[in-house]
Amino acid sequence: MTGVKSIFEPESVVLIGSSRIREKVGMTSPKMFDGVIYNMNKFFVGKTYVVDLEGNKGVKSIDELPKIPEMAVIMLPPNLAIEQAKICAQNGVKALVLLIGGCMVAQYQELLRLRKKFGIRILGPNTIMGVINTINGLNTIFHRDVMPLKGDIAVVSQSGGVGACLLDLACCQEIGVSKFAFVGDKIDIDDVDLLGYLSQDENTKVICLYMEGLKRGREFIEVAREIVRTKPILVIKGGVTREAARRAMSHTASLVGSDVIFDAAFKKAGVIRVDDIEQLLNSAVVLSKQPRLSGDNIAIISNVGGPAILAADAIVKNGLKLATLSEKTRLTIEKRFRGIEAVNPIDLIADARKERYSIALEAVLSDPNVDGVMVINMLKSCFFEPEDALVIAEIADKHEDKPVVDVPAGGEDFISVQKVLRKTRIPVYNLPEKAAEAMGTLRIHNKKRKPRDSDLV
Amino acid sequence: MTGVKSIFEPESVVLIGSSRIREKVGMTSPKMFDGVIYNMNKFFVGKTYVVDLEGNKGVKSIDELPKIPEMAVIMLPPNLAIEQAKICAQNGVKALVLLIGGCMVAQYQELLRLRKKFGIRILGPNTIMGVINTINGLNTIFHRDVMPLKGDIAVVSQSGGVGACLLDLACCQEIGVSKFAFVGDKIDIDDVDLLGYLSQDENTKVICLYMEGLKRGREFIEVAREIVRTKPILVIKGGVTREAARRAMSHTASLVGSDVIFDAAFKKAGVIRVDDIEQLLNSAVVLSKQPRLSGDNIAIISNVGGPAILAADAIVKNGLKLATLSEKTRLTIEKRFRGIEAVNPIDLIADARKERYSIALEAVLSDPNVDGVMVINMLKSCFFEPEDALVIAEIADKHEDKPVVDVPAGGEDFISVQKVLRKTRIPVYNLPEKAAEAMGTLRIHNKKRKPRDSDLV
Repeated sequence: MTGVKSIFEPESVVLIGSSRIREKVGMTSPKMFDGVIYNMNKFFVGKTYVVDLEGNKGVKSIDELPKIPEMAVIMLPPNLAIEQAKICAQNGVKALVLLIGGCMVAQYQELLRLRKKFGIRILGPNTIMGVINTINGLNTIFHRDVMPLKGDIAVVSQSGGVGACLLDLACCQEIGVSKFAFVGDKIDIDDVDLLGYLSQDENTKVICLYMEGLKRGREFIEVAREIVRTKPILVIKGGVTREAARRAMSHTASLVGSDVIFDAAFKKAGVIRVDDIEQLLNSAVVLSKQPRLSGDNIAIISNVGGPAILAADAIVKNGLKLATLSEKTRLTIEKRFRGIEAVNPIDLIADARKERYSIALEAVLSDPNVDGVMVINMLKSCFFEPEDALVIAEIADKHEDKPVVDVPAGGEDFISVQKVLRKTRIPVYNLPEKAAEAMGTLRIHNKKRKPRDSDLV
Repeated sequence: MTGVKSIFEPESVVLIGSSRIREKVGMTSPKMFDGVIYNMNKFFVGKTYVVDLEGNKGVKSIDELPKIPEMAVIMLPPNLAIEQAKICAQNGVKALVLLIGGCMVAQYQELLRLRKKFGIRILGPNTIMGVINTINGLNTIFHRDVMPLKGDIAVVSQSGGVGACLLDLACCQEIGVSKFAFVGDKIDIDDVDLLGYLSQDENTKVICLYMEGLKRGREFIEVAREIVRTKPILVIKGGVTREAARRAMSHTASLVGSDVIFDAAFKKAGVIRVDDIEQLLNSAVVLSKQPRLSGDNIAIISNVGGPAILAADAIVKNGLKLATLSEKTRLTIEKRFRGIEAVNPIDLIADARKERYSIALEAVLSDPNVDGVMVINMLKSCFFEPEDALVIAEIADKHEDKPVVDVPAGGEDFISVQKVLRKTRIPVYNLPEKAAEAMGTLRIHNKKRKPRDSDLV
């Protein structure tokens, strides 16, 4: 555990690269080196040292540093990287992040020897992007100024590409992140180590995994099982089909077992398996922002008919139910707004604005027959304005025990409502199907959670 | 047919509304009226007249117009709307678009009587948004300046809300549209009529339908079956689950049959059923931009491992195969770029830029074992720059008989590559799963198409 902590929370970091070497096919280059130096200097609150084999960007060797740093990031071709790893280990560096790939078997063995002899922990090789910790600003990404907002979602990706896609989406949609770890070949630090660390990390509420293979399956199940009682774990498994699995083996040198085995392991571990990257993030957001969904009964409030019908279909497809509203709820809404029939899904009619939404949402959230609410507020074909959406967050805040999600279906309209609701606890989706899927995940997680005291009464 | 043509291609249109009446719950309002007047004046190349019951925005009655217009758009509460519909019919107006809803049974009957007696064709009531024709600028949308780009995708939506969502996405993503029709209650003009018209429309290459119910099932199957031999038809069916279906009945007063029956009808009709709005548009775009996919064998070219593995999984899940590349292709790529293993999916390594993509894409498109290509070019975690994507369109243009799609997976990165490729024939997707789904649709459609001359040799 100590070593894994050094990966995310080092007091000091040394960046080891070259201002001259550029691989013909491969990532080692002054450009990559410069990018990481830039980000570390800009964001990291600890001490950053630079070792440049040519001595242009910093000293030529870690021997010349005033103090031995806790963690080293190495960006060099394999032979030189191993040489530097050795020097680091011998000098008491506690952890290594090996960004680049192309290692041969003998080089992997040499790294494992260092691990064993010196106790040094290794992330990678082949992590490409390394680590991010939004709390202390640790950022080994080589793209300048790529830094997600602080938040409580942690991401562990075996693939640099999948992790990069998640990172880009998180930045673009302003989704708050606690930690990012690109684990690459996992010769030492693996999912089990990282789960152990993240389970204790008070800044992490939800854990997202992308994995192609898994070495310590039994330990993974044990660790995950305990974690999901408090923190949900979401996973995408790459290499499901035989064709892709064969490729995954050569890609990250991991043994890819049959998908049936993985599926059984995920079930046993209580991990929630999702289909794609978008679903992973959508689910993570709803899990991090919303209270538990303690029953299956969902109310839909909408200003249009069609999308509410698609929402109702999607609610049922995701294992949930359309709530039967109480007589009281029905009367509250229908008496106030003549012409509206308050049957779930409730169609508030296309000219509904914040007043009608406010009354209807308050009524359904107060209804004991309702466990959660999907609000649909279209702009096009309706009179709803983006600012009207604030009322949804206001009413939801008065009912903190029930999840509420919002769907301004579309493109530009979705973006403009998302901007309005960004700082609130309401997740926003561009299609009702995605919102229903996220609510389904919320329900699945609740079934795996530790019971609340109130549940035990 | 004549009447349906008057809906989309009228020489002259009269907009009938009120500058005073505002329904308490409902859409009739001076705001709506003003919006439609604004859009028609701005976009419509034919003659636009205005009848305002108060006489502020135009004359008070169509009697006062210099000439009887071919088509009338009515935006009034039901009782007044019916009155105006009658005057229109008696005066020889050929078609009506009834934007707003809330009609009673007797009022539907009165409309049907007018239809029968005068031969006038009716779109709606309850269409909310009416019609768009990007060729002549006809636009009865009440949101100002909402006008999609010209293109060859037609949309017919029973729901204003679902149609509005499609319209907003098309505008946001600059997807070219030929016609939009919001059909609402379908008391007269229905899917069968519109399919008949769109099958003859030379500006329409792909037809998208959202339907909750269907009145003339047998005719629909007959008409659709003939059309899909040349133009693909995509459909989303709302009200699949019993719960949602019940709601759909009250929403658009249509008889919603069991989903099994619909599914069988769609299969018989050769219509491609999709799951949600995003898939509908993604599929429509690939069908409108790309050549037929004449076999199952897909090559994946990528600069990252993980997303290529997810792509391979998705290709197989969508009924396609990973192409086995020929020896010639493999050697062409591997000899040129040492360190790259040209096995499908081909990983060009994270530092690949346009030269490597160009050589690899040329090689796989020339390979007789390959029927179509998914290109993945990540920006984050890689050295690829948005402008490099142009080379994909260049090489694809030299191989017009094979589909090529592009995946710059992520958020901001997706948007920046999409901008670069917008004017080309390459569809761009933000996730490999969506690209694979679209390629699957391309393959399904090809199996329903008329054989080409070359296929008959």
